[in-house]
Amino acid sequence: MPQHTEKAKAKLHSLTAALESGALSKVRRMLNAMAAVDIAHLLEASTPKVRKVLWELVDKESEGEVLQHLSDELQGHFLSDMSAEEVADVTADLDTDDVADMLQQLPERVTQEVLSSMDRQDRVRIESILEYPEDCAGGLMNTDTVTIRPDITLEVTLRYLRRHKTLPDMTDNLLVVNRQNEFIGVLPINKLLVSDPQQTVREVMNTDSKVIHADLHETEVAKLFERHDLVSAPVVNLAGELLGRITIDDVVDVIRENADHSLMSMAGLDEEEDTFAPAMKTSRRRAVWLGINLITAFIASAVIGLFDKTIEQVVALAVLMPIVASMGGIAGSQVLTLVIRGQALGHLSGANFRWLFNRELIVAGVNGSLWALVIAAITFVWFNDPIIAAIIGAAIIINLFVAAISGAALPLILKARGIDPALAGSVILTTVTDVVGFLSFLGLATIFYL
Amino acid sequence: MPQHTEKAKAKLHSLTAALESGALSKVRRMLNAMAAVDIAHLLEASTPKVRKVLWELVDKESEGEVLQHLSDELQGHFLSDMSAEEVADVTADLDTDDVADMLQQLPERVTQEVLSSMDRQDRVRIESILEYPEDCAGGLMNTDTVTIRPDITLEVTLRYLRRHKTLPDMTDNLLVVNRQNEFIGVLPINKLLVSDPQQTVREVMNTDSKVIHADLHETEVAKLFERHDLVSAPVVNLAGELLGRITIDDVVDVIRENADHSLMSMAGLDEEEDTFAPAMKTSRRRAVWLGINLITAFIASAVIGLFDKTIEQVVALAVLMPIVASMGGIAGSQVLTLVIRGQALGHLSGANFRWLFNRELIVAGVNGSLWALVIAAITFVWFNDPIIAAIIGAAIIINLFVAAISGAALPLILKARGIDPALAGSVILTTVTDVVGFLSFLGLATIFYL
Repeated sequence: MPQHTEKAKAKLHSLTAALESGALSKVRRMLNAMAAVDIAHLLEASTPKVRKVLWELVDKESEGEVLQHLSDELQGHFLSDMSAEEVADVTADLDTDDVADMLQQLPERVTQEVLSSMDRQDRVRIESILEYPEDCAGGLMNTDTVTIRPDITLEVTLRYLRRHKTLPDMTDNLLVVNRQNEFIGVLPINKLLVSDPQQTVREVMNTDSKVIHADLHETEVAKLFERHDLVSAPVVNLAGELLGRITIDDVVDVIRENADHSLMSMAGLDEEEDTFAPAMKTSRRRAVWLGINLITAFIASAVIGLFDKTIEQVVALAVLMPIVASMGGIAGSQVLTLVIRGQALGHLSGANFRWLFNRELIVAGVNGSLWALVIAAITFVWFNDPIIAAIIGAAIIINLFVAAISGAALPLILKARGIDPALAGSVILTTVTDVVGFLSFLGLATIFYL
Repeated sequence: MPQHTEKAKAKLHSLTAALESGALSKVRRMLNAMAAVDIAHLLEASTPKVRKVLWELVDKESEGEVLQHLSDELQGHFLSDMSAEEVADVTADLDTDDVADMLQQLPERVTQEVLSSMDRQDRVRIESILEYPEDCAGGLMNTDTVTIRPDITLEVTLRYLRRHKTLPDMTDNLLVVNRQNEFIGVLPINKLLVSDPQQTVREVMNTDSKVIHADLHETEVAKLFERHDLVSAPVVNLAGELLGRITIDDVVDVIRENADHSLMSMAGLDEEEDTFAPAMKTSRRRAVWLGINLITAFIASAVIGLFDKTIEQVVALAVLMPIVASMGGIAGSQVLTLVIRGQALGHLSGANFRWLFNRELIVAGVNGSLWALVIAAITFVWFNDPIIAAIIGAAIIINLFVAAISGAALPLILKARGIDPALAGSVILTTVTDVVGFLSFLGLATIFYL
């Protein structure tokens, strides 16, 4: 176990101890000695009651920074208890993009109050970000950029930079703009450092660097950063004017959230889901998902109900039927997951999908026949009845083919209809594999036994 | 749809067309006009046959760069067809960490040959990386660093930098070391630019910056980068000597892979899984997972088999029993997924787990009773039998409690035993919820009907 997490664990432990012993002043001291990001992590990892206590102990001046590191759900939770003035204060020193994100957790009315209580420059900057949806480049961007003109020399640029007390974090490029603030190119700082100071910016700058349009969706922004190993990228509007820049730290959050999205959605959960949400809130959310799945369960039952006469005569069918359904479900979910991930990585196109589809049919054929044989053999030994063994074998093959077809096709059909495959895919898939599983197995049995 | 992906799509389309028309020279031209990362993406998104053709058309000198952007599985696939000399050549101009990653895809013997055919400096550097497992800081690090001594002035530093033609990508910090090459601190380039050139490095450098030990696990490295918004971080050995540095681009890959891991594992897939792996390879891999799940299915059947007499008398039980099992499975997988994500985010500790566990029990109680009522009501209307309605209601409540308990406890138990919860969790969970579902429902029925 890495040493620094050991330390963290130890710190956490003594803090919890102090908390339980009610030594709040001690807790406050320990808490505010921590980095904002670690306080945020501690809050995320705390139960609601503890969370409330800890939040009240956080120094006013660090509240903003802590908030910025919290998940949307927790941000909204804490912000909702604050007045517009308080929100304005605690966010005063934050990056404009982070402030914009937070404001999006608040009701429109409050957002307006907060904005009006800010100084003009900040308000204008943040409003320029709020113009864009949270999930596109304009919503991700940060407006604090270091811009220079192309006609000055590097020497002058260096002197100009020295007039700053600090440069914004992750400033790997200076952004070159003309008098109309139109983006022309970037001057990589590393290039500035190794080039002859007498050269002009125009001579040294890159004009082929990646530029991001404010309306580009965040997942596409993430792909650009990943594929071109960017640390930051300029954001421009359709007129080509520089609006701001996106930095890798914000992109990493996007990557993490999008990756979590598929995992959580497949279980009917939200990627922003608070691990320690209160019981009632959790119950309400989960109830919906259970309800949806109950419908599919009843559909499966209805199918079984069609064959009650057959089951009455051959009870072994009832014993074996779950095997057919579950094997179909497992095989289907493997295809479904692979295709959903393929969509996320942008691997799937019309051309290669046909190949993938055919491969899945082959795989279904191979594994279908293999496991059909195994299951038929076990069934024969178990019930010593060749007919039922043959029937379950056939049903398994049928269901694995159907599972492959629906597992591969569902994500594309759903996506084309604007439905999230990760969320709806697994429910629909199980419905299909259950129905087909029971239908084929019990149906064939009815033909052969009645 | 963002414009640049439109362009990509169009390019891909005409390339595919050229490929189908067999105009290979045209394909070669188009292919080698693309960036290495885009060629890599195209290969990942191609079917095996097309992949083979395309790979042969890639210019020798860009092969290395393309390889570096491929998944481990594809890297291994292409590298295995190359001689040690070829591997040495194509990797000659790559970052040492990327070369090390590739060598890890090769058999030990070949790796040794490749190393021996490299020049001494590269060999030493790469061997220093290969000393560490691929999944820890030492394996992630890159050995090309810009180091300076603390006693020189910024003026001198600037002049020293100007002697370089370029600086390594993502050089946001100069690394300060003493004569024994022990790491002392970092000089952020942005600080270098805004500070008085007459100051010495020692006066300006940060000594409290994050330092990573070579044996830190990659997931911990990723957490450090995420939580402290790092672009790069120095890597040291236990003696405190500087070994190299890790850059955010490599960390992003770690984050992406770890996030994909849970999703893919839950379906028994590998996060490095090639979307377009050949049918036979895929069949073999999937067969294993189906086999494991078949065992759980037969266990469930065996349980049902215990009650065949009861089912013979009340066939409605056979119709309804899947509902009890599936509701348990759904409820359980929601808890399981939440806890597995919580583990990945480092939210779970002994203290808050007890709370989480209790909350899940409450949620199970609430949703259990809610849906037990609904299901009982529907059952009563359907079969007009109060006993069976009451029995299924009771079974639902029992199974949802068991689902909550196993969904919450399994990940911790498995992790403590060194088993991957994402991989084994869902299989074990469904076994439990199926067994308990059938056992409680059919068991209660037996008591009341026989």
